[in-house]
Amino acid sequence: MSGLTLTVFTEKYKKLVEQQLKDSVSQLAAPEIILDSMHYSLSAGGKRIRPLLTFATMSAFGKDPETGLLPAAAIEMIHTYSLIHDDLPSMDDDDLRRGIPTNHKVYGEAIAILAGDALLTYSFQLITSMQDFDAEVKIKVMEIIAKSAGAEGMVGGQVGDIEGEGKQLSKEDLEYIHVHKTGKMLEASVLVGAHLAGADKKQMKLLTEFAYHLGLAFQIRDDILDVEGDEQLIGKPLGSDVDNHKSTYPALLTMEGAKKELAYHIAAAKEKLAQLSLQTGLLEEMTDLVANRNS
Amino acid sequence: MSGLTLTVFTEKYKKLVEQQLKDSVSQLAAPEIILDSMHYSLSAGGKRIRPLLTFATMSAFGKDPETGLLPAAAIEMIHTYSLIHDDLPSMDDDDLRRGIPTNHKVYGEAIAILAGDALLTYSFQLITSMQDFDAEVKIKVMEIIAKSAGAEGMVGGQVGDIEGEGKQLSKEDLEYIHVHKTGKMLEASVLVGAHLAGADKKQMKLLTEFAYHLGLAFQIRDDILDVEGDEQLIGKPLGSDVDNHKSTYPALLTMEGAKKELAYHIAAAKEKLAQLSLQTGLLEEMTDLVANRNS
Repeated sequence: MSGLTLTVFTEKYKKLVEQQLKDSVSQLAAPEIILDSMHYSLSAGGKRIRPLLTFATMSAFGKDPETGLLPAAAIEMIHTYSLIHDDLPSMDDDDLRRGIPTNHKVYGEAIAILAGDALLTYSFQLITSMQDFDAEVKIKVMEIIAKSAGAEGMVGGQVGDIEGEGKQLSKEDLEYIHVHKTGKMLEASVLVGAHLAGADKKQMKLLTEFAYHLGLAFQIRDDILDVEGDEQLIGKPLGSDVDNHKSTYPALLTMEGAKKELAYHIAAAKEKLAQLSLQTGLLEEMTDLVANRNS
Repeated sequence: MSGLTLTVFTEKYKKLVEQQLKDSVSQLAAPEIILDSMHYSLSAGGKRIRPLLTFATMSAFGKDPETGLLPAAAIEMIHTYSLIHDDLPSMDDDDLRRGIPTNHKVYGEAIAILAGDALLTYSFQLITSMQDFDAEVKIKVMEIIAKSAGAEGMVGGQVGDIEGEGKQLSKEDLEYIHVHKTGKMLEASVLVGAHLAGADKKQMKLLTEFAYHLGLAFQIRDDILDVEGDEQLIGKPLGSDVDNHKSTYPALLTMEGAKKELAYHIAAAKEKLAQLSLQTGLLEEMTDLVANRNS
């Protein structure tokens, strides 16, 4: 598929998921400040890579992506809650994200923590309200997402990240952190789409492997951008990894080694896609985008 | 039913749910510190009123309570996560709970926040793994719990509580806070049990009204204990509501007025039970226990 196709696809589905996020929170009867705080971080932009991965995976199977709107929004809510909590003073202590003040800088720590809690909780509620799938499918979607988001997934990775601060980590430790902190929810985004599209076991396995490589590539590119990216495009100061005493791929492997590692994972991800015999054009283009993104 | 029956019932099911909580977390493959932190707060004691309400409700319908073990454990996990987050310095800033240091005093704020996040996430995963019920029932259980725990429920109540600090609240505002912060998860405990036992609409409505009065009674008793309780039994210093500039029922209605209000809600809760024509002996005894508890 052509670059134009991905652009059109992205524009269409980004808009849809952003509208869904807005509508979902607007439906809630709750104190205004918590709804404002939830809206603030949900509408703070971002690439929406996770929902787009869900949609692109469904599309690879010829399934209408729009039927995946609620779980895709749920995944983006979980991603957003994780950013709010990660930015807190007791975690990464970040004042800026995507060029605007972080949630707790605007609403205070207590409301920021509660907005994160509310988004995480609401994400599961959204899945219960999916229309086009039966209860068995919803339960499986819930299981994939909960496992990927929790102690065995994203939260475990964040714990490793915090515990690893100021330590010289091995490549294995660093991989544990990134496979869990970033990789697991990217994997969930793909697997939820695949499950909604009725993927078989072999396809689920290949897509799990694809997501593994994509997730590592994503994180290596992140580490590279923190050194040689454009501060304006990224929306926060460069060098935050060094400031936070975090291990990174460039520090561990040299910048050249990190770029080689990135190229390896991009190639491996594409190879897995090629083995699927599906319409994986959009997923391939998204993989290239991850490798070359500037923000 | 006799007092002995409730004692035996409580002893049996408290043990079962505490074992389930321990086993569930032990199964997780995650960094040791997050598992330790989750275990720490889950095993810090407590009355386990929420799971016991689920079990007692199932028992009222003649349904084996043990089949509700996983959702009951899930509800207790959500309660535990809410305590960990409520105790944080940016929220109530409590150093002690149930006579031992709060989670963040032992593990630090970052791990405490993440342990809360992990418990909340895991609670939904637990429900997906229930054995004795079909997917439709699990989805309904999930829906009840997510709605009660999120922005429209417990989190909304906590927001109201924080926003209300230092302000003179009306009785209506105070009721909003307590119905949501405490009441909604007590209600969920009852309704999940009822749903698992196959309750009809009329029964669900009566049990919702029962839980409403029980929840308010629970909170009024809490406010009374904060003034005239036994510090040893409660496990934290008295007068914390005054110290945190919180509105309370005794402050709003006088101590005598608060006790009258407590008696009213206990009587109303019992009246709802009486209308059910079920074996509600255990639920009645639990209601009396809420009214008279010393901790």
